[in-house]
Amino acid sequence: MQQQLSVITLGISDLARSRRFYVDGFGWRPAFENPEIVFYQMNGFVLGTWLASALECDIRRSGLARPGAFALAHNVAAREEVQPTIDRLARCGGRILRMADAPPHGGYRGYVADPDDHAWEIAWNPAWPISAEGYVSWGIG
Amino acid sequence: MQQQLSVITLGISDLARSRRFYVDGFGWRPAFENPEIVFYQMNGFVLGTWLASALECDIRRSGLARPGAFALAHNVAAREEVQPTIDRLARCGGRILRMADAPPHGGYRGYVADPDDHAWEIAWNPAWPISAEGYVSWGIG
Repeated sequence: MQQQLSVITLGISDLARSRRFYVDGFGWRPAFENPEIVFYQMNGFVLGTWLASALECDIRRSGLARPGAFALAHNVAAREEVQPTIDRLARCGGRILRMADAPPHGGYRGYVADPDDHAWEIAWNPAWPISAEGYVSWGIG
Repeated sequence: MQQQLSVITLGISDLARSRRFYVDGFGWRPAFENPEIVFYQMNGFVLGTWLASALECDIRRSGLARPGAFALAHNVAAREEVQPTIDRLARCGGRILRMADAPPHGGYRGYVADPDDHAWEIAWNPAWPISAEGYVSWGIG
């Protein structure tokens, strides 16, 4: 079976508010959008931001909670980009959870929540190679 | 800025129970594991399953809730693989949330929760190409 994940779908409350964080904050371009969902083509999979009410209906569960027990990470190419990226995301509707600092296992990272309280780690991790296409490989420092 | 996500980290409570779902259920191989985290090399990024207490400490927030307002998806190559994949995951510690059926936008899908209540959609979506390496592209049917 392929070691593959095709979509991450985040439940959101306000499409325009979420779009500002991802499009203006990260600088990403949607692949598709309509009044209830925005899809972004990522590095080998798709990110969707979908109205939480529609997501709940699709999963057939209710009461999905935020903040959930998970984090997403975006790695940058240099240590000096970490805090400015967090600051820019905060200016686009995010909320800083942890200012950048050095974790015990090396590298440099901080956390920012998107407008729907989903946690994003912004990290510089020199042990994990990133290809020109954005494909990320696990590695050890 | 790269349209890239490097890691999805899921907060878990019991490493062996979670590992059974991902290794025996999905058939995936860890890239690294220690007593608090398992990393899986995915299609262009890394999936981590980390003790939720350690994740909370890293993010600097507490009370991360489950089920969170998000879903992950794994796409399969044929409609006939969807329900058997869900059934196998359920035998490996998962819990079926929605039996497979056809959504209005086409394809075929169901949902299963992992042992920590994180929702996985198992889907057949003929409009979204998957390369031999597992890279998934957004498409329209």
